[in-house]
Amino acid sequence: MRNRIITISREFGSGGREIGMKTAGRLGIKCYDNELLKKIAAESGFSECYIEDAGEYAPGGLLSSAFSHQSHGPNNADYLWNIQYNIITKLAENEACVIVGRCADSILEEKNDCLKVFIHADMSFRLNRVSGEYNKPEEASEQYLKKMDRRRASYHQFYTGKKWGLAQNYDLCLDSGRLGIARCVEIITHLYDMI
Amino acid sequence: MRNRIITISREFGSGGREIGMKTAGRLGIKCYDNELLKKIAAESGFSECYIEDAGEYAPGGLLSSAFSHQSHGPNNADYLWNIQYNIITKLAENEACVIVGRCADSILEEKNDCLKVFIHADMSFRLNRVSGEYNKPEEASEQYLKKMDRRRASYHQFYTGKKWGLAQNYDLCLDSGRLGIARCVEIITHLYDMI
Repeated sequence: MRNRIITISREFGSGGREIGMKTAGRLGIKCYDNELLKKIAAESGFSECYIEDAGEYAPGGLLSSAFSHQSHGPNNADYLWNIQYNIITKLAENEACVIVGRCADSILEEKNDCLKVFIHADMSFRLNRVSGEYNKPEEASEQYLKKMDRRRASYHQFYTGKKWGLAQNYDLCLDSGRLGIARCVEIITHLYDMI
Repeated sequence: MRNRIITISREFGSGGREIGMKTAGRLGIKCYDNELLKKIAAESGFSECYIEDAGEYAPGGLLSSAFSHQSHGPNNADYLWNIQYNIITKLAENEACVIVGRCADSILEEKNDCLKVFIHADMSFRLNRVSGEYNKPEEASEQYLKKMDRRRASYHQFYTGKKWGLAQNYDLCLDSGRLGIARCVEIITHLYDMI
């Protein structure tokens, strides 16, 4: 039996995680987000907080890549990347599911029955969500959101060599602020049947 | 009455034009593609062929912008851009329609009832379309397709200051090779009701 996977990459505060969870609920499959953190923590021995932070931070900055520091050997982030890579690959072999973030789009790139989604939204929609629905008013600044996006983009570029947010790297990109969370869930659910 | 607009930007050979025409057909509205060329030709006095070519070529190359050569005054491309800008703005004021290409996404950026779509596909899907359905085997090379994409990207960057193909610049981005032309038409038609 095929295990159809949906990967959701997202701008910080765009509701990608909510869309992932609601889509999984509609489809009756599991959504891996914090669950994935738990798995990586259990396998690596690092704390979930550390992994959450390291999972969005490229070791060498924007201009380096996973290959540019090979003479120094792997660091913690490389070690975690390797565990994350193996866990995601194994998940996709064993069950149909939604995977939020953690470069699953690139890790599962060669898998035919994987729908790669990117969710984004304008700044005001994201600021509202972060301060309201996420209840994290201290994070609701344009500067903070942009910093988080830069970190995700840099991490993605570092470990996959691909530009985060470039339409050509996904099957489907949706503006959740413009289309609304419910409509994004509906479109993704509908397209799941075709993969 | 509101005039709801769909703009379609697309990689060369991805079927964006076909998707635009079929969507317009389903919605009972007009699709402006060659029609737009005719309007610009009538207003400018230039031939349609010249406009088709100039409309995808940034005067100063990749690193310049519409503001970097202001000391030399406008050239033909700037003159055509101005006419194109006015025609698209007026179209959007007067009727609901689909507009393919020509930076309509950026020209109508501030218009709330405009759905901005980007269509892309992998190289083999596009090569097949160009040699088969477009019946232009002489253009069916990876090098030619990449050149056309670079020209579109450079023209878009030059006149709008925005990166062509970056998901954040569109409401919806679809991989026509992966999802299929019919499914793209279906999604866009469905979303038209919500704008």
